[in-house]
Amino acid sequence: MKGPRFTPLIDSLPATVPFVGPEEQERIMGRPFTARLGANESVYGPAPEAIAAMAAEAAESWKYGDSLSHDLRAKLSEVHGVNPENMVIGSGIDGLLGSLVRLLVGQGTPVVTSAGAYPTFNYHVTGFGGTIHSVPYRNDAEDPDALIAKAAEVDAALIYFANPDNPMGSWHSAGRVQAMIDALPEGCVLCLDEAYCEFAPEGAVPPLDMTHPRVIRMRTFSKAHGMAGARIGYALGHEALIAAFSKVRNHFGVNRMAQAGALASLNAPDWLAHVQTEVAAARERISAIAAENGLAALPSATNFVTIDCGRDGAYAKSVLDGLIARGVFVRMPFVAPENRCIRVSAGTRADTDAFAVALRDTLAALG
Amino acid sequence: MKGPRFTPLIDSLPATVPFVGPEEQERIMGRPFTARLGANESVYGPAPEAIAAMAAEAAESWKYGDSLSHDLRAKLSEVHGVNPENMVIGSGIDGLLGSLVRLLVGQGTPVVTSAGAYPTFNYHVTGFGGTIHSVPYRNDAEDPDALIAKAAEVDAALIYFANPDNPMGSWHSAGRVQAMIDALPEGCVLCLDEAYCEFAPEGAVPPLDMTHPRVIRMRTFSKAHGMAGARIGYALGHEALIAAFSKVRNHFGVNRMAQAGALASLNAPDWLAHVQTEVAAARERISAIAAENGLAALPSATNFVTIDCGRDGAYAKSVLDGLIARGVFVRMPFVAPENRCIRVSAGTRADTDAFAVALRDTLAALG
Repeated sequence: MKGPRFTPLIDSLPATVPFVGPEEQERIMGRPFTARLGANESVYGPAPEAIAAMAAEAAESWKYGDSLSHDLRAKLSEVHGVNPENMVIGSGIDGLLGSLVRLLVGQGTPVVTSAGAYPTFNYHVTGFGGTIHSVPYRNDAEDPDALIAKAAEVDAALIYFANPDNPMGSWHSAGRVQAMIDALPEGCVLCLDEAYCEFAPEGAVPPLDMTHPRVIRMRTFSKAHGMAGARIGYALGHEALIAAFSKVRNHFGVNRMAQAGALASLNAPDWLAHVQTEVAAARERISAIAAENGLAALPSATNFVTIDCGRDGAYAKSVLDGLIARGVFVRMPFVAPENRCIRVSAGTRADTDAFAVALRDTLAALG
Repeated sequence: MKGPRFTPLIDSLPATVPFVGPEEQERIMGRPFTARLGANESVYGPAPEAIAAMAAEAAESWKYGDSLSHDLRAKLSEVHGVNPENMVIGSGIDGLLGSLVRLLVGQGTPVVTSAGAYPTFNYHVTGFGGTIHSVPYRNDAEDPDALIAKAAEVDAALIYFANPDNPMGSWHSAGRVQAMIDALPEGCVLCLDEAYCEFAPEGAVPPLDMTHPRVIRMRTFSKAHGMAGARIGYALGHEALIAAFSKVRNHFGVNRMAQAGALASLNAPDWLAHVQTEVAAARERISAIAAENGLAALPSATNFVTIDCGRDGAYAKSVLDGLIARGVFVRMPFVAPENRCIRVSAGTRADTDAFAVALRDTLAALG
């Protein structure tokens, strides 16, 4: 009996997935990780107020969530000084990127990103038939000029640009980003992924100008708010672009507990400050551990530290494998020359202590 | 400044949404509903064990959920006697329908459903450019023969068929469904939405045969398991069809608390039995209330009762409006002649008491 008739696009897609999660790695290894520092999760957890709100909402889970996320958007409106019409709530930035790509990308649509930037974005672009044009990183940072030039050259419908950047932890000033916005080619949308913006130094995030019809900012509760597993994030942009999401989004798709937790987290700004302090301290510790082992940590505006292992990608991969074999979950950039590095998320003191031991032993074993 | 270049498909889509949620209706009315009986939610709530599991997992929400939902699939494998490779977990049936449609439907792809069946399915089909061919209900039930005949006629890639049906509450025997599967035209996928299967009488659900390459069964934790707000469901089917979901799904998109809650709910079968008993009693009460008011309740294999208001759609709409104005959230079918009915979800005794008063007063006011 014949199988389904998948669309030609689906038939053309590979069965690969962007990431193998830590649980699957643990199942393959047959034991749990000692330190979970590979997915830039916030080991400090959600705000106690957010935990309490989600726990309380568990009993209310028989009700679908509010499809308009009214209360959350109202609070975000207050926090950011933009109108609720300028924001759409989604199942994390991953879900929002999927919707954004679907709005703009069809078969052969040119899209620009940086080689080695967020692979889930590429997954969505490929998944909707788009053609990815990549530009290299420059000095371990995304290159605004190259992204803009490439977009103009290929007549891109969409540029992906993360500031601060993952996986390198680097960042550009608000002025540099604003210049990029000002230079955006006609008809091209700039997707500004600001998942890590709460960890960036002052002056890295441009003002939230909602008047530009083709700039969209992605924010999340997965990082600084410590709610990755809740799957909730939001996009900020011109109301015409935001309104278009309602043509394709899964309207009742955002978990009710997540909505309650996000709202509670916004009402607990002290926790965010606490996490920022913890992350800054953890970055210091990770950088010091790298230095003690003769490796150079890159400056970071995120909740992770990217460490230059000083040789090529194969060597960094062997460091990564050694850390994983010693129970420390970390990841690394995909593309040369950035793949000379490993990427270590901010952890508790116990986490970074475990990392220190594992790194020392790994390097000793590698000789 | 020009706006984004949406794809031609996106430009062609209406900005309408499938449903206005009860929270939005409450905001518009300026007061809360007394009884929430419009979305076929389970007012009895999740299993206490599921509530406890979700509440406990709230503190763990800093971790992304397992992208493979390994433990949940293992448990479902045990419950249903099918392999984990035959199932994919998604953000409710809504999310899974979106992925299924994306796999099979491109511009102009013919798709068959029943006029007045689940509108979110149509939303997805339209959203991916498909062409919907509808057949009418027959005696307030979906019509398997007509669906199959129409699919053969238009060379459909996909048929949607819900058993038991929403919004009519009717059902077909397993034998009738199996005959439909046997008659499925070559190349056509049958999507069998079994969201309400736990409420159906014995003999309404065909065996879970995973060998057919083009039959996919949709199940959910939103209804009998009382976890609509958690957004978690699953699809069962041939492993080649299930594997294709991994080309498009949001891999880390399922909430971590939802996964924990679903697993706990499967481990608490007594709660399911309790809900089934409560639903059966509530159906009896709703049917009796209808009869007391001179209206005929239709037989139901679901957690709601569809009530024939005895006149046309305009009259049923006025009954619906009267109930809503009196604080009772209910919905109704969209299409004639089924729209002579209203649809009332199973409720607590307080809910159905409120419905009884509101219905009596509404009918009195309508004269």
